[in-house]
Amino acid sequence: IGGLVLCLKTATFCPTLVMTHICVSCQLPITCFILEIILIILFGTLVQYDHETDAKQWHNQSHEDYENDFYFRYPSFQDVHVMIFIGFGFLMTFLQRYGFSSVGFNFLIAAFALQWATLMQGFFHGLHGGKIHIGVESMINADFCTGSVLISFGAVLGKTSPVQLLVMAMFEVTLFAVNEFILLSILGTRDAGGSMTIHTFGAYFGLMVTRVLYRPNLDKSKHRNCSVYHSDLFAMIGTIYLWMFWPSFNSAITAHGDDQHRTAMNTYYSLAACTLSTYGMSALTAHDGKLDMVHIQNAALAGGVAVGTAGEMMLTPFGSMIVGFLAGVISVLGFKYLSPILEDKLKIQDTCGVHNLHGMPGVLGAIVGAVTAALASTDVYGGGLSDVFPDVASGDVTATKQGGIQAASLAVTLGIALLGGLIVGFILKLPIFGAPPDTICFEDSIYWEVSCEIIILYILYFFQSDLQQTHHHTQLSARWIKTT
Amino acid sequence: IGGLVLCLKTATFCPTLVMTHICVSCQLPITCFILEIILIILFGTLVQYDHETDAKQWHNQSHEDYENDFYFRYPSFQDVHVMIFIGFGFLMTFLQRYGFSSVGFNFLIAAFALQWATLMQGFFHGLHGGKIHIGVESMINADFCTGSVLISFGAVLGKTSPVQLLVMAMFEVTLFAVNEFILLSILGTRDAGGSMTIHTFGAYFGLMVTRVLYRPNLDKSKHRNCSVYHSDLFAMIGTIYLWMFWPSFNSAITAHGDDQHRTAMNTYYSLAACTLSTYGMSALTAHDGKLDMVHIQNAALAGGVAVGTAGEMMLTPFGSMIVGFLAGVISVLGFKYLSPILEDKLKIQDTCGVHNLHGMPGVLGAIVGAVTAALASTDVYGGGLSDVFPDVASGDVTATKQGGIQAASLAVTLGIALLGGLIVGFILKLPIFGAPPDTICFEDSIYWEVSCEIIILYILYFFQSDLQQTHHHTQLSARWIKTT
Amino acid sequence: IGGLVLCLKTATFCPTLVMTHICVSCQLPITCFILEIILIILFGTLVQYDHETDAKQWHNQSHEDYENDFYFRYPSFQDVHVMIFIGFGFLMTFLQRYGFSSVGFNFLIAAFALQWATLMQGFFHGLHGGKIHIGVESMINADFCTGSVLISFGAVLGKTSPVQLLVMAMFEVTLFAVNEFILLSILGTRDAGGSMTIHTFGAYFGLMVTRVLYRPNLDKSKHRNCSVYHSDLFAMIGTIYLWMFWPSFNSAITAHGDDQHRTAMNTYYSLAACTLSTYGMSALTAHDGKLDMVHIQNAALAGGVAVGTAGEMMLTPFGSMIVGFLAGVISVLGFKYLSPILEDKLKIQDTCGVHNLHGMPGVLGAIVGAVTAALASTDVYGGGLSDVFPDVASGDVTATKQGGIQAASLAVTLGIALLGGLIVGFILKLPIFGAPPDTICFEDSIYWEVSCEIIILYILYFFQSDLQQTHHHTQLSARWIKTT
Repeated sequence: IGGLVLCLKTATFCPTLVMTHICVSCQLPITCFILEIILIILFGTLVQYDHETDAKQWHNQSHEDYENDFYFRYPSFQDVHVMIFIGFGFLMTFLQRYGFSSVGFNFLIAAFALQWATLMQGFFHGLHGGKIHIGVESMINADFCTGSVLISFGAVLGKTSPVQLLVMAMFEVTLFAVNEFILLSILGTRDAGGSMTIHTFGAYFGLMVTRVLYRPNLDKSKHRNCSVYHSDLFAMIGTIYLWMFWPSFNSAITAHGDDQHRTAMNTYYSLAACTLSTYGMSALTAHDGKLDMVHIQNAALAGGVAVGTAGEMMLTPFGSMIVGFLAGVISVLGFKYLSPILEDKLKIQDTCGVHNLHGMPGVLGAIVGAVTAALASTDVYGGGLSDVFPDVASGDVTATKQGGIQAASLAVTLGIALLGGLIVGFILKLPIFGAPPDTICFEDSIYWEVSCEIIILYILYFFQSDLQQTHHHTQLSARWIKTT
Repeated sequence: IGGLVLCLKTATFCPTLVMTHICVSCQLPITCFILEIILIILFGTLVQYDHETDAKQWHNQSHEDYENDFYFRYPSFQDVHVMIFIGFGFLMTFLQRYGFSSVGFNFLIAAFALQWATLMQGFFHGLHGGKIHIGVESMINADFCTGSVLISFGAVLGKTSPVQLLVMAMFEVTLFAVNEFILLSILGTRDAGGSMTIHTFGAYFGLMVTRVLYRPNLDKSKHRNCSVYHSDLFAMIGTIYLWMFWPSFNSAITAHGDDQHRTAMNTYYSLAACTLSTYGMSALTAHDGKLDMVHIQNAALAGGVAVGTAGEMMLTPFGSMIVGFLAGVISVLGFKYLSPILEDKLKIQDTCGVHNLHGMPGVLGAIVGAVTAALASTDVYGGGLSDVFPDVASGDVTATKQGGIQAASLAVTLGIALLGGLIVGFILKLPIFGAPPDTICFEDSIYWEVSCEIIILYILYFFQSDLQQTHHHTQLSARWIKTT
Repeated sequence: IGGLVLCLKTATFCPTLVMTHICVSCQLPITCFILEIILIILFGTLVQYDHETDAKQWHNQSHEDYENDFYFRYPSFQDVHVMIFIGFGFLMTFLQRYGFSSVGFNFLIAAFALQWATLMQGFFHGLHGGKIHIGVESMINADFCTGSVLISFGAVLGKTSPVQLLVMAMFEVTLFAVNEFILLSILGTRDAGGSMTIHTFGAYFGLMVTRVLYRPNLDKSKHRNCSVYHSDLFAMIGTIYLWMFWPSFNSAITAHGDDQHRTAMNTYYSLAACTLSTYGMSALTAHDGKLDMVHIQNAALAGGVAVGTAGEMMLTPFGSMIVGFLAGVISVLGFKYLSPILEDKLKIQDTCGVHNLHGMPGVLGAIVGAVTAALASTDVYGGGLSDVFPDVASGDVTATKQGGIQAASLAVTLGIALLGGLIVGFILKLPIFGAPPDTICFEDSIYWEVSCEIIILYILYFFQSDLQQTHHHTQLSARWIKTT
């Protein structure tokens, strides 16, 4: 009952909080307007339609309409889009009093990041006469980069202001584009579903940021850092959408034809196997055999992360299921045993457990990708080798060397993520960005107009039942009326 | 606390309400059955498969299967379908006690309107030997027309019976088809995403209806015309789906190939820019820098409305972002400053603020479309000019004249919408349709079997705490038991 | 008030329940691990990429990328996937205290069933050199088979342990594949949307299982077998997704081109007509003309079930609407009048009313399919006859005979479903599977870690109000503190 009392008592802060954060009233609007105006100017000077979206260029060439890349990728793009905005957004609504911020800040930083990512990725992926050319593939890539930022958001969830998040997104998108450029363009790494570029990068970047932003007194908000019945159901909306559309995520930018088809199918079976191992491990490790919603909401998705690199390869459904099975196991173990250690020993306060969902499964995915690449041969891939491993098909590298490149890419990604997170973490520590105090983390009402009726009911209740035992009814009831 | 008290007190009406609306028990079934039987008879006499859905006709011609329009448009159709049923439906669940009606009446009138729209649009778009030919494009158009009806539903939300809504849908669909016929077929207007035909028409029609249905004593239901924490989260499901799939909405019926591709991309960037300006304006205008859920839920979507006409044109991402940015700004300003004026001075009670989300951004979209059309040239569009502006490409009109036609179309749309809304409003005022009394607007329990447990808890609570201060505990508690 | 009191009182069991179900702690993990390991081994030995997902085979042949079946079926597959995981999962969250289990067990058994179905269907649909070949079509078929299992889950919802459900899924998938093989491969039945194979089979199998598992004392959990306001809104998410994507469900595996197009459109109009008849019947039959959420959530979907067989045929929109209209009528009548009889007289406790949504409309769909098949002719279908009725087109059977085959298939399906359900029901009765006791059915907290704050509030409240009337305040309040 102590926890409950604490939980209810803190709700009384609600009215007083209203007063404390005036600063936000100028910071957030200024940040939004400046960022968007910069984006608009840069788009005006740098961005052009590519040859599939430009009316003149498309009609200058001889095509059939159905050859436009739109029809190969747009359904996948929309699935990815749902994962970014509904999937990530609602997955984080599990917190009882942070639903508006989870969905709302997810919405804000994703809308910013996808525009900024268009510019950064366009800049690194090659300019065309000084211009960035965009189409459905660049839109998918922008959403992918945004996904990485949202993973980092999961690590710092509840402890950062929207201005901090926008600043983090700005730096992280830039570093993401640098890392992606090094991997895909310089090293020739294959990573269509982003086990390394998206998940490993986003997770370790976010973990380092949250390490730098360590709050020794976060316990003061601990009672709010938990779920209630309906908030867990909202979170399941996010989980299920991520789970269903992960095949589209991993296959969205693979080569047309058999590659997209195979990638989607490998991911489908990996996720199915992961779900069974997650349920098994959750019941095995949890208190008296009960299932834990935290595991189901997160670990069941690890199978998608872990075939992000190898999904487009000839991993076979058999291989995909083994990888998915292992991903579920290590993810639940991470939630159960590793997360408390990370928090206690390494001072990493990882709100959503992104290390367990994106970090470790991402590393697993990178390793699986390296091994699968090293085993590639014309015997298995036939004429399709040039789609999956163009450098191997052209004879520039051997399959073994490609495997080595894949492994080296993991190290590069970890290095850039950790170093970048360290620097960005210190930038975010600057007091000007208005981080919430330790006592009111995981709380919507400092950033949002929140109707207080339910909280009030709780408070009233608590006080009253308390009073009736202590026979001080009149005074306390009066106090409540005063504070409202 | 006065508001809270009011809020809780009104819940006591619940049991008595049960008795008052017997009339509905015959009206709604009769209306549903008669309408559906008429629809079935008309479909039986008038509607045929088109050449892409008819087994014989499709196989009579020489095609490849992938040339069937189904594969070009069905994914977009399903996205539009989600916007109509989940997007509009859940967007309106923000009201604390009107969630069943928001989703449920949305479902009912949309299911009716899409059938009726198939007939009306088929009739005006050209009969084939006295028959209406249907396929995926007509399904999208029917959903579009339905969207317009749902926009009007947003204006009168909480204040109308389902029978009134069905009657409104019947007339509005008809007038929508007339207006669409005048614009697209007679004037040669371009409006693929429906800034004028869907959004401007739906909004001003609905505003005029709600003006005619003005309730001077709506204050009596004011305490229910607000959101609670979880109802706002449900509404965010609607918002995010509308936001994500708006690129599909605007591109669903544009020409195959680069047109669909370009339209989707323009909308994507317009919405992203709109989101940042919405967050900025919300924090700037709201009380002490906090964000207001009403703005986020609605204004962030204005960017999609505002590129409804120009989205298929060579607006460029740069132009799209400027339009989106402005749409977000005017939409938030509308919610903050214009809506109260409309209600106080013009007696327009606009429950969902459709004037801010669909009305003003729709007009903006029409103007942007007119300007963009006036600037069209073969130099920019190349061979694609005939897809976007067939009349200009054929030399029938100049680009400047096309711009003028677009502007004139806005005037026509406003005229038909306002005049139509006026007439339909007076029809809906007829007492036979069973409008709810002023005291029980925004309330599910007069139309739905609602489990009362939560309300009962509130009532109990209120009375009890009240009692304990007034020392009349026993009597009042007894009264509660009696009324249940 | 008696019901309310009961409802609140039972919540006190919560703490004591924690102790009773230790057994689950070993059963569920062992079941999950063993099943998944068996699946992985069988996939390793039996499953291969088909020629459209295998890199070598696809590139060995001369194709254009857009001819890959992925682009014809993947958007439909994802819609079906959403129906299985979000649609079925959330449809069942209407129970007030069973939301975690509804979504969570749906997730678990679906993830298992789709893997097992791949093997069973692959085995029966024809091996290729001893191997099962898989691609997007087999994924859709696996999801279809899973749907059948989830229908049966609806019948036993709240009364079975997850281990029981996994065992049921294992047997049901096997029998589904046998029935499907007899119908599609031996008899040559047409049933693209599964009125017989999926809906009729799943419903009658589940009804027989729940009959065998009859609980005479289920009344002890009756107070939890009802919805609350927000749980009904969550359920509407499931309903609307099922409704929207049913056109994709019925058209997912029909022939390319006009067939997919026509099937989707027939389903669209059938569902629209069904929605109006459902609202009409609900208001007509329910208490004082109010709408009942149970009808809206379920009966409005019957139109999709009822055109599952005939949807791909030249049913015409007119025919589809008549079928949809009738399906809505019989489904609401079933909920209102037949379900109580089934429960009282036949001892069939059908939690979700699957007999009304899947059973009767499935039989209706089978009959409509038989009649429509019997009327088929080259005159109507032209060259498309070979797509829809290959056996009729090749002259192997007459159209009339095809109609007879369709009717016989219904009888076969009913026979296998009822006999299978009988046997599987007795297997599930074995005490080793840990079925919940009669007193704690429809309750999440025996399988899930559930935060108890809201329940506690209710208990507190009830006791207190109770006390204040009986003047035993101090003792009872103390009792509450002790049990927490």
